[in-house]
Amino acid sequence: MAQGTLYIVSAPSGAGKSSLIQALLKTQPLYDTQVSISHTTRAVRPGEKHGEHYFFVSEAEFCDMIEKDDFLEHAQVFGNYYGTSRAAIEQVLKTGVDVFLDIDWQGAKQIREKMSDARSIFILPPSKEELGRRLRGRNQDSEEVIAKRMAQAVAEMTHFAEYDYLIVNDDFDLALLDLKTIIRAERLRLGRQKLKYDGLITKLLAD
Amino acid sequence: MAQGTLYIVSAPSGAGKSSLIQALLKTQPLYDTQVSISHTTRAVRPGEKHGEHYFFVSEAEFCDMIEKDDFLEHAQVFGNYYGTSRAAIEQVLKTGVDVFLDIDWQGAKQIREKMSDARSIFILPPSKEELGRRLRGRNQDSEEVIAKRMAQAVAEMTHFAEYDYLIVNDDFDLALLDLKTIIRAERLRLGRQKLKYDGLITKLLAD
Repeated sequence: MAQGTLYIVSAPSGAGKSSLIQALLKTQPLYDTQVSISHTTRAVRPGEKHGEHYFFVSEAEFCDMIEKDDFLEHAQVFGNYYGTSRAAIEQVLKTGVDVFLDIDWQGAKQIREKMSDARSIFILPPSKEELGRRLRGRNQDSEEVIAKRMAQAVAEMTHFAEYDYLIVNDDFDLALLDLKTIIRAERLRLGRQKLKYDGLITKLLAD
Repeated sequence: MAQGTLYIVSAPSGAGKSSLIQALLKTQPLYDTQVSISHTTRAVRPGEKHGEHYFFVSEAEFCDMIEKDDFLEHAQVFGNYYGTSRAAIEQVLKTGVDVFLDIDWQGAKQIREKMSDARSIFILPPSKEELGRRLRGRNQDSEEVIAKRMAQAVAEMTHFAEYDYLIVNDDFDLALLDLKTIIRAERLRLGRQKLKYDGLITKLLAD
């Protein structure tokens, strides 16, 4: 059984990361590409499903998983825990499915250390002006809030060089094609192909 | 200026390597992808042009280049010398053009040692039967000659695991797409993109 690839995707907000990943998953079948599902201790919101949006667990269960070192990374945000379970991801990878993980540079760093086979992709906006427009949104926020968002975006972008691939999201369709191109090329690597064509290779090399 | 990538392509005869590389070059502009041109001491044949099909040099010139360690690899075939000049390839790579080098596993091994940034691709036929049909050609050769060709093909194929990428040439158009996918994905790698988007990155990270 071929082993899937874990993709870590990071970007400043305003680069279009979430839209790109959503568009990617829409065009790829579930048996082919999936997004990683996090564990969280926060309350279920209306419409959310366990195992689809999050794995909802109690604080005791979450702490138990931390102790068992089951998390590739975890963090506390506004009093709630969020984490990426190694077991949950490895179970999907084992079936040959590629898994996408939408995470910031700090989470990416932790995961890279624990999953050395993971590939990482950083997405950049096409210009500072366009980034400003996207962060400004519907013009409902104060200049102070927008300046803070921009500072956060720049801080995230200073880590672009820690990633394997770099995509500039100028034209959305081209950026989506870039993402697909990376996935397809990674599937042509020796390790994946050797497993996929195991039978053929044995026959070709037989006397 | 972006630096091009050197691609080493190997395959047993009958896998369709030359046709794939030719088709690739037809669809990619010259400023984008080129094939490596070898140096040789053999006589010019009608229609051949210096600097297009080969760099034709005298034996003295060739030996001088060997002594200066200018060859990434070289070999003697039927009394003539053939070699791949490092200077010739680096001159093209420097302009941002990707260079394809059609070579056997032994040449590939030598080049990998000297150019660690090179990417290597191995092409396999879709089945032993199809390989046999392709090696049989126009049925003009004796069974002995065909058996010898098959043995050579198998010997070449035993080295597939030394390559970065593996393409199975079952459907020609799909195999060509695989080749293009690899080139495009390699161009999305951090090193290439960092050079290409140097100006953008500087602006994005400025205060």
